[in-house]
Amino acid sequence: LPQSDTAMIVAVSGGADSTALLLALDELNKVGPLSLEIFVAHLDHKIRESSAKDAKAVATLAKSLGYTPVIGRSNVAEIAATNSDNLEQAARSARYDFLQRTALRKHASYVLSGHTMDDQAETVLLRLMRGSAAAGLGGMEKQRPLEVNSKVTLVRPILWARRTETEEYCRFRNVAFLSDEMNDDEKFARVKVRKQLLPLMKTFNNRVVEALSRTATLLREDTEVLVGSAGDLLELAAVATPNSSKSKGNHRALRIDVLLSAPPALRRRALREWITTERGNVRRLEMVHLLAVERLLEKNRGGKVVELPNGGHVRRSRGQIEFVGASLRGLPPLSRKPRKIK
Amino acid sequence: LPQSDTAMIVAVSGGADSTALLLALDELNKVGPLSLEIFVAHLDHKIRESSAKDAKAVATLAKSLGYTPVIGRSNVAEIAATNSDNLEQAARSARYDFLQRTALRKHASYVLSGHTMDDQAETVLLRLMRGSAAAGLGGMEKQRPLEVNSKVTLVRPILWARRTETEEYCRFRNVAFLSDEMNDDEKFARVKVRKQLLPLMKTFNNRVVEALSRTATLLREDTEVLVGSAGDLLELAAVATPNSSKSKGNHRALRIDVLLSAPPALRRRALREWITTERGNVRRLEMVHLLAVERLLEKNRGGKVVELPNGGHVRRSRGQIEFVGASLRGLPPLSRKPRKIK
Repeated sequence: LPQSDTAMIVAVSGGADSTALLLALDELNKVGPLSLEIFVAHLDHKIRESSAKDAKAVATLAKSLGYTPVIGRSNVAEIAATNSDNLEQAARSARYDFLQRTALRKHASYVLSGHTMDDQAETVLLRLMRGSAAAGLGGMEKQRPLEVNSKVTLVRPILWARRTETEEYCRFRNVAFLSDEMNDDEKFARVKVRKQLLPLMKTFNNRVVEALSRTATLLREDTEVLVGSAGDLLELAAVATPNSSKSKGNHRALRIDVLLSAPPALRRRALREWITTERGNVRRLEMVHLLAVERLLEKNRGGKVVELPNGGHVRRSRGQIEFVGASLRGLPPLSRKPRKIK
Repeated sequence: LPQSDTAMIVAVSGGADSTALLLALDELNKVGPLSLEIFVAHLDHKIRESSAKDAKAVATLAKSLGYTPVIGRSNVAEIAATNSDNLEQAARSARYDFLQRTALRKHASYVLSGHTMDDQAETVLLRLMRGSAAAGLGGMEKQRPLEVNSKVTLVRPILWARRTETEEYCRFRNVAFLSDEMNDDEKFARVKVRKQLLPLMKTFNNRVVEALSRTATLLREDTEVLVGSAGDLLELAAVATPNSSKSKGNHRALRIDVLLSAPPALRRRALREWITTERGNVRRLEMVHLLAVERLLEKNRGGKVVELPNGGHVRRSRGQIEFVGASLRGLPPLSRKPRKIK
């Protein structure tokens, strides 16, 4: 990361984690090693009574340290109701949009967030219980694009720290932090993981948070290698198809014999990558659809076409599979389950 | 698996899982598709008051179906006390030894066990809480050698079944199954996973056992690919070293430049494989030792030698690392933590 003369957005909820991140950056800024232009971004999500007061507290803290606060407002409950999203999902999405807009407005290439090792462990467990594969179990990355195709990078500089350490550091700096009531509401899965699941797991291994975090790191490293090898497989299997290159120009069919001779771990990753590229997005694509496409490869099982959710289908024809377009525009949402067409 | 004219050992504790396995094999044997010579193996571990009675019940069931029971006896508690092992570990080890001996005595190449999808989920969680990497999180394999270098194969034919299904099948066949009191004793980690952790996880996802089992399968497939690629890396990095080929003949040094240019996920697997081969065993080798050897690769960090637990050390010298023998015979057990020697 650049250490000076750069604008950076620090996402501060006002909780211990993000407050500690801000205070640490501030210390490094003032002692010397860093010289960053810091903007303190906070979204007032209006879910709680006290949210306006919280926003004010964050703004006051930012100013007291000499940084510009950027306070956004979003009626998350209303948005969630309109889109029939759950509240967690709606809050998250509103927050990311706000951070993206703020970064662009302040010409900042980085948004820093205060996720800790405890958040990482919670993420791993939530994904494990959903049946994620290695990529999901790898948890949060240290750096990634803030949103798909965004040039703004989300950085998590304190993934190595425990939550209790961030609380201690705030106390050491004599700065009060907020405790979000949502953090105590066990109707949120993440809160229940924090309040019930992790404490039970600690009775097996007192350092289970560290263990989960280390496992996540190893699985991210595994995934990197496997994704690379799957890319090689994709190159090997790809054939140019002049007749299907309509608008986007890079439609490629894949040779079934090459795919079938590859190990399933690479084949499924290659298929996922292929569909994502061909279709332009990975929305609602789940393991069940990849398995359906895999079955398509075997001549005597299933049909000749697998319909994908959210647009497009994959067709088998003369030893190859090809993706048949259907841009997202104007198409009705398709069922989540893959349908087989004879 | 061979379907006829073969001797097979079925490991039957008398619980629902293994009883259902025996009954299913019996049904297939009598209806037609299978024609196997079945031996019913049961180890009386003498941990409980009722264990002799249980052994008798299994023997009676076996005979009533027309199969030969093989009942072993082992005072597991005494062995555990002598070796200061925990009871679970001692019971497991006594059971495997008994099954291995029974297979050899009956000229059977296969031992079949009644592990279910529920056992798989428990295994995954136990390993996760210990901080296992992909190989461990892959859980139990469908087939593997019963013991290291054993020609007897352990097969788990009902890993796809839920525990409740095995109970239902026993009831359907009108055969009583035993319920082991150890299965209710929450001082055993596995029992606590079954009685507390999995029920809590089910409140997040009612099909969490299926999810964990599917994740395990995917991670096993990942591991297979990664181990293969790590083997290629090992070949690439290996150099013959005439001066270190004392007794075993296949001591190989590894080129540090090749190892450093490889991704960590492959490097660590290659190092693990290399140490295992050079030393002849993987005993007590943990991630911490692999990380120490990895640090050894970087010239300016740490010393020139990493001592391994349970015998042998790795030395850096002129752009290579080599394993320096020390056969296990007669050497005192070394400390578990890797020590650095200047």
